[in-house]
Amino acid sequence: MVLLCKALHHVVHPDRLFPADPNVRQIARSLYEHTQALPLVSPHGHCNPSGLADNRHFDDPSIELVTKDHYFLRLLYSQGVPLEALGVRPNDGSHFETDGRQVWRLFAQHYHHFSGTPSKLWLDHAMSEVFGIEAAITPETADQTYGELSDRLQDDAFRPRSLFERFGIEFLATTDGAIDPLDAHARLRASGWTGRVVPTFRPDDVVDPDRVDFQANVEELGQMTGEDTSTWPGYLNAIRQRRSSFVDAGATASDHGHPSANTVDLSWQDSEALFARVISGQQEESDAECFRGLMLVQMAAMSLDDGLVMQIHAGSWRGHNPTVRNQFGTDMGADIPQSVNYVGALKPLLDRFGNDPSLTVVMYTLDETTYSRELAPLAGHYPALRIGPPWWFYDSPEGMRRYYQQVIETAGFANTVGFNDDARSLLTIPARHDVARRVNAGFLAGLVAEHRLGTDEAEQIATGLAYNLAHDAFKVDP
Amino acid sequence: MVLLCKALHHVVHPDRLFPADPNVRQIARSLYEHTQALPLVSPHGHCNPSGLADNRHFDDPSIELVTKDHYFLRLLYSQGVPLEALGVRPNDGSHFETDGRQVWRLFAQHYHHFSGTPSKLWLDHAMSEVFGIEAAITPETADQTYGELSDRLQDDAFRPRSLFERFGIEFLATTDGAIDPLDAHARLRASGWTGRVVPTFRPDDVVDPDRVDFQANVEELGQMTGEDTSTWPGYLNAIRQRRSSFVDAGATASDHGHPSANTVDLSWQDSEALFARVISGQQEESDAECFRGLMLVQMAAMSLDDGLVMQIHAGSWRGHNPTVRNQFGTDMGADIPQSVNYVGALKPLLDRFGNDPSLTVVMYTLDETTYSRELAPLAGHYPALRIGPPWWFYDSPEGMRRYYQQVIETAGFANTVGFNDDARSLLTIPARHDVARRVNAGFLAGLVAEHRLGTDEAEQIATGLAYNLAHDAFKVDP
Amino acid sequence: MVLLCKALHHVVHPDRLFPADPNVRQIARSLYEHTQALPLVSPHGHCNPSGLADNRHFDDPSIELVTKDHYFLRLLYSQGVPLEALGVRPNDGSHFETDGRQVWRLFAQHYHHFSGTPSKLWLDHAMSEVFGIEAAITPETADQTYGELSDRLQDDAFRPRSLFERFGIEFLATTDGAIDPLDAHARLRASGWTGRVVPTFRPDDVVDPDRVDFQANVEELGQMTGEDTSTWPGYLNAIRQRRSSFVDAGATASDHGHPSANTVDLSWQDSEALFARVISGQQEESDAECFRGLMLVQMAAMSLDDGLVMQIHAGSWRGHNPTVRNQFGTDMGADIPQSVNYVGALKPLLDRFGNDPSLTVVMYTLDETTYSRELAPLAGHYPALRIGPPWWFYDSPEGMRRYYQQVIETAGFANTVGFNDDARSLLTIPARHDVARRVNAGFLAGLVAEHRLGTDEAEQIATGLAYNLAHDAFKVDP
Repeated sequence: MVLLCKALHHVVHPDRLFPADPNVRQIARSLYEHTQALPLVSPHGHCNPSGLADNRHFDDPSIELVTKDHYFLRLLYSQGVPLEALGVRPNDGSHFETDGRQVWRLFAQHYHHFSGTPSKLWLDHAMSEVFGIEAAITPETADQTYGELSDRLQDDAFRPRSLFERFGIEFLATTDGAIDPLDAHARLRASGWTGRVVPTFRPDDVVDPDRVDFQANVEELGQMTGEDTSTWPGYLNAIRQRRSSFVDAGATASDHGHPSANTVDLSWQDSEALFARVISGQQEESDAECFRGLMLVQMAAMSLDDGLVMQIHAGSWRGHNPTVRNQFGTDMGADIPQSVNYVGALKPLLDRFGNDPSLTVVMYTLDETTYSRELAPLAGHYPALRIGPPWWFYDSPEGMRRYYQQVIETAGFANTVGFNDDARSLLTIPARHDVARRVNAGFLAGLVAEHRLGTDEAEQIATGLAYNLAHDAFKVDP
Repeated sequence: MVLLCKALHHVVHPDRLFPADPNVRQIARSLYEHTQALPLVSPHGHCNPSGLADNRHFDDPSIELVTKDHYFLRLLYSQGVPLEALGVRPNDGSHFETDGRQVWRLFAQHYHHFSGTPSKLWLDHAMSEVFGIEAAITPETADQTYGELSDRLQDDAFRPRSLFERFGIEFLATTDGAIDPLDAHARLRASGWTGRVVPTFRPDDVVDPDRVDFQANVEELGQMTGEDTSTWPGYLNAIRQRRSSFVDAGATASDHGHPSANTVDLSWQDSEALFARVISGQQEESDAECFRGLMLVQMAAMSLDDGLVMQIHAGSWRGHNPTVRNQFGTDMGADIPQSVNYVGALKPLLDRFGNDPSLTVVMYTLDETTYSRELAPLAGHYPALRIGPPWWFYDSPEGMRRYYQQVIETAGFANTVGFNDDARSLLTIPARHDVARRVNAGFLAGLVAEHRLGTDEAEQIATGLAYNLAHDAFKVDP
Repeated sequence: MVLLCKALHHVVHPDRLFPADPNVRQIARSLYEHTQALPLVSPHGHCNPSGLADNRHFDDPSIELVTKDHYFLRLLYSQGVPLEALGVRPNDGSHFETDGRQVWRLFAQHYHHFSGTPSKLWLDHAMSEVFGIEAAITPETADQTYGELSDRLQDDAFRPRSLFERFGIEFLATTDGAIDPLDAHARLRASGWTGRVVPTFRPDDVVDPDRVDFQANVEELGQMTGEDTSTWPGYLNAIRQRRSSFVDAGATASDHGHPSANTVDLSWQDSEALFARVISGQQEESDAECFRGLMLVQMAAMSLDDGLVMQIHAGSWRGHNPTVRNQFGTDMGADIPQSVNYVGALKPLLDRFGNDPSLTVVMYTLDETTYSRELAPLAGHYPALRIGPPWWFYDSPEGMRRYYQQVIETAGFANTVGFNDDARSLLTIPARHDVARRVNAGFLAGLVAEHRLGTDEAEQIATGLAYNLAHDAFKVDP
């Protein structure tokens, strides 16, 4: 990745995140340098494709960097900062801060709360290496840094496509609902621009009967596809059609965000009856959970046909805070992880498809206790299963270290899939990859220093973690 | 904290607990020195207030340092040492060792079993830095060290108030039952001594229907307050009165020791019916657990009125060993942690009060898996919630490191509340704070060395962890 | 342990697994040297006693080192390598690779997948230090290394007894079913060879009603012992007899592999009724689990009579993959750990026998979350309970480090039982002990460097972890 300017050492030190021991640091630095210039593969994230399709300038920097970032929102909210003061629009139409400069000032006042968090690592990197801004974010510099940010974002070099190219992004997957018409992706392909931006099929909206808009979404799915989605076969056909449209738009993966990892394998008859209950709104106690589990198995079956890599993100209690959800909606930092069991939950899916090496299921978790107890043993045995990188709260230096320490000895590196940046803004993508590459280099350097890994092996693995594993697992080469 | 004498380097090294790497150690030492002289804030512990009220000499050193310390009792018992030989009085009136010198000799024979435990760190510190005793505790030195300890404890400089002042304690909270008359605290206030010693409202005895003395306690509560505690409103009024008396005695916090973290929110009618069942001894299967959960929500409501910080200590299976409980009673080291779920359990309380920044709920856990999965995400979102320091078995170097590694990236330092010494004896209070300040310095030094934190930030955070966070969270300034 | 040849530094470095910091490494090296020559005590493993009884040459090196090793099988299978290509015989009689050279070539092609795993540490050690082979295992060297291995194994110095003596094994326990006639052990004793190889009583085959051969096994148990095992007292007597035969054959321990840690204490009448149901095949829903739990309590009672140390290995979902189980049978790497609760599960056993220091129950876990939350607190209190070393997936550098970090502060070293190699092949026993001794030295060196442990203490503890703790806990001295 090519960055604009030299690192500003008082904020982002060139040796940041490398182990403190001088010998290990030296090894880490060398491994990092080995991977630093590799292209960025971003197979899972939440950038808005229309920004790239239209290549329009970014919005106000506060919106882009603060208001859209649920990590910042949550911690500021926990410290008593009202969300509306951070630019979040209340559902009831009441007042919220619309002046980006005011949001930035407030943010700068509280930025010290992010000491020791990955959010600060990412933003400091973006400020320094993407924007070339020298000053640290403090109440004193707030107006100055806001001004510099605003100026930069008006520069054509900071339009999305320019940044995409400057960052050296080889592949960027967005996340798109099953009934998303994929217009932005169509405009992107039609534009002639060569940057590779593809959708990811995320069908939660038509798969989760607990959503209030489930039935409406399934009906819309029927209209989009010309299928009768009030019937089980029509519903399945409609989903197959949409997957096919995503494949045509370049998708290589699907993504499934479920409260648990439960998978369910039912006979055609039982499936049909279950679908009839959930689609008619006459679902019983456990029907919604059962249906979600059934659909994971169905999607795995479809993946064997259309080749989409299947990602399962499990274990988040979405919208745990009803006050915030009612007032501001979702993605405000009120999603809380829960304990998850994978060993029994994934068995129905694995019993049917786990031994098939042509299927790739990438499993993500928010329950770190399952790294060594469940996911590494499962992925270290089943040909179809891979472990996704540390996710969400654990996409952090300590989180990544725990992941490697707990996963590799049992699953090996080959059953992992490299890094996901999971970014919501293009502006922080390089930061996230940089943190990961540095932490990877540090972890591998530790193994080299303890003579558990040769230098050559470490270089190959570092390249794998930075590039090849994601590239291969997510089928970036068509 | 001002201590009597120089550290004895062969036992307590001046660089103990600092990271081994010379550069990191240098940073850690400097951060530690920055906090070493700060006053001790002790917002949660189990010192006996009458000792300070009467300022009488301590008992026999073996009783004070060994017999009263459930950490020592449990590990010695696990190695086959009978509790009665350690000075614990059996309930059946049978023989137990009353000669402190014999207890100390036995203790010294087994002291090597504590290698690598925090108990040894604390006691070695007390021996060296509080008592100025040079010899290590061994069978050979047992008589000598016992003699020196006994002599010192007869010295007026070792009376409780002198030690309190020498240790630089700014604030010391004891733990007191709801029907405790707070006599010692009254004597303390009446004495004219300026040391700040306050009670903590711990109402488990009148809140937990599973206690055999529950009904008797509630009746006594009624007598103390002149309320009819056989009715739900009378019971609530009585509790409010007692809280008020505690506030008058200087209390700034309540403390709730519950087997689980379950909270329950019921209508007035349902609450009244539930109370009627538990107070009449006609409780059904889950009534006790439900009532405890109900009372946590009720206490949170009262905290919003009277300002008491609400501490919840959850997850201990008290008295797991019926033989030991029957023979010797409670607090003998037979309490065992259990897996706890907080995400669903705290929801009723958080749904009602979680968004109110004027409430402070401090949550402690014995289930370390919840640090990163549940408590850091919850505290990193809800304005009313803070994470207590590593508790009980985890109030140790490795325990604290795991805590910081798993909590800070998600919750930030600002959602923690600094250190609790949880001490049962005044004599080990400085040791416990010293261990914490050293481990904190080491953790922060690691972040500085990896350029994840600036030196200035680290100094501020070190001061926060040693002093300000506890001071502010527990409202030490009236 | 005396090894054949100098370490080959490009593969197995003399400082491998020691901490990177030069000072800590120096301490670790010194502690390691302190333990390096100690005899090997191997109180738990799966070597075949008939190999030693007959002292015949080992089979083909691929079978011995790859095909019999479920760690290798599982990870290779996860990467799409068919088990039959690794020499595993399919149950349906279909083709499998019988040429060891072909298996070795395939293995060498995939050996890089084991970078960072303990399997590679063990095999590299065996290649270098046991076989004296210089080349690393790569596709290029496959034929050469296979040839060298095959040659060595034909050498009389590589017969089992020669290796046993060269390795300095003082005590080797095998694992043997309750109805095993112990022929090989009888031949061993009759042979006049002085190597101490003893059986371990593993009665799962006659204790677990979920096994398809349970009733047949119990019937055979009756025939072996002349007891009427269709009755509860006859069944118990038969088990007592078999335990006695094992004791006569030198056994000092029993071993119990259960899906959970549940223990159950029932009246004689209820036990009799439960046994009647399971032995007649008329068991109800929870009878099998209940019966297994009952038998753990019964076995503890028997241990108090005959002195066998009782090992409980809990928490593995055996044969999670039905396809692999049907095609190839058990021990193919498809066993997956599960979350386990010990606090409630062990209570019935501990309520009866937990306070008896003459009983030793060694508890192993595959759920690392229980180290600090459950097992260390339990073992740090109950005289009868000890914590086994990190088991199976966690018998690895990172696994051991986590174990020590989470166990010692609460349980002390004295409640652990040293190392188990759990080896399936004599050839890797030295490697496993060597890894453990190195990791132990590194962990202790860290404590010394942080002044949490004196050098003398550390040396004693290192010796304890390498030798005395296992030696004493497993009653190696008759």
